[in-house]
Amino acid sequence: MRNIIIASTSTIYGSGYLEYIIQPLNVLFKNAKTILFIPYARPGGISHDAYTTIAKQAFTKLNKQVIGIHEFKNPIEAVTNAQAIFVGGGNTFVLANQLHKNHLLTQLKQVVQNGTPYLGTSAGSNICGLSIKTTNDMPIVYPPNFKALGLVPFNINPHYLDPDPNSKHKGETRETRIKEFHHYNTQPVIGLREGSWLEVKNDSIILKGDLTARIFEYNKTPYEVTPETELKQLK
Amino acid sequence: MRNIIIASTSTIYGSGYLEYIIQPLNVLFKNAKTILFIPYARPGGISHDAYTTIAKQAFTKLNKQVIGIHEFKNPIEAVTNAQAIFVGGGNTFVLANQLHKNHLLTQLKQVVQNGTPYLGTSAGSNICGLSIKTTNDMPIVYPPNFKALGLVPFNINPHYLDPDPNSKHKGETRETRIKEFHHYNTQPVIGLREGSWLEVKNDSIILKGDLTARIFEYNKTPYEVTPETELKQLK
Repeated sequence: MRNIIIASTSTIYGSGYLEYIIQPLNVLFKNAKTILFIPYARPGGISHDAYTTIAKQAFTKLNKQVIGIHEFKNPIEAVTNAQAIFVGGGNTFVLANQLHKNHLLTQLKQVVQNGTPYLGTSAGSNICGLSIKTTNDMPIVYPPNFKALGLVPFNINPHYLDPDPNSKHKGETRETRIKEFHHYNTQPVIGLREGSWLEVKNDSIILKGDLTARIFEYNKTPYEVTPETELKQLK
Repeated sequence: MRNIIIASTSTIYGSGYLEYIIQPLNVLFKNAKTILFIPYARPGGISHDAYTTIAKQAFTKLNKQVIGIHEFKNPIEAVTNAQAIFVGGGNTFVLANQLHKNHLLTQLKQVVQNGTPYLGTSAGSNICGLSIKTTNDMPIVYPPNFKALGLVPFNINPHYLDPDPNSKHKGETRETRIKEFHHYNTQPVIGLREGSWLEVKNDSIILKGDLTARIFEYNKTPYEVTPETELKQLK
């Protein structure tokens, strides 16, 4: 009963907020009049209100009403009753921490497993994996643990970046970081480039967008998969 | 009594391991015949032995013996008795986790405060700050907390990168990430570019190397400081 879009980014270069993905979102949210927005990741530290305003504006094009979860007295009830859910990007640690504080992880997982349409972008996509251990974000707050929703049986690395062959920088490449992850964790990781998303429908998990994605499996050489590849066997 | 070098990186582009900083290290370690190496950050997931071999080779030039802390039965005693200490780079979460596991943070802080010469590079520099919350690393393991040694009264961001004005990537810039940090934390952050280091001698903290460093203070516009600037007032 799952109906999920897990997007690398909300925005691609030269395009407006959610613009590149607006048609798939029209399909995802076709039966919803209102969308519950979870602004907890606070990109750039902006307020829940300011962030929700951005989401509201994006969805006027689809004639959807967006309500921020912080506008409800009881956030668990808000999740339970939501027609659709959108968790926006920002800082994954801040997002995870606030979800824990409000005891939302269990309920969020349950309603999405039961069919409530879900859109995640960036940090909102990280939390769809098994853990947040492959986020790119800075650990600016300390969450109670690094567990995520486990809506898919692997981890996500959003905003995946290929090594720059001309770089003089000595910090780790993204690929090196994910390889280090596999010294301590065994689940696969999908490096989703900006403009790519996963479409999860019931048991199926399909790579969408124009780009390939990079798959990192434990003890295997990383490899690319093309758009429309079925990824449900990855676990 | 502090005698510390906090380096952005072990290696700069086009140069060997620790090569760019070898003369300052000769001064830092002038009274030490042996250096205790802490290889816990395991860059690229390499073993403690393999990492220690790299450090050993680098210090043959200075005629110093390097011993890995994992070669001792009692790591707390190893720290207590060390003539000098070097904590290498890699993954900051892995490093912090292993320091916690071996109950080393208190003793490490004490001996360095009492004058044992200390070199940190990258992850080994992150742990010199108040917390590891400004690391660039992937959170591949969950440490018991994000506290660091507090050898300096601010946080370090090693491998500091300026925003690339030509980038089409929509992931956060380093500056955005540090600004997000300041929505939840108030201590200053020093963005140390590769090739820069801090020389801590007793109460003095001087920026060294050829480059400026970027200072992020809570509720202030970030600014640059030039080499030889005294930074002890920053807290």
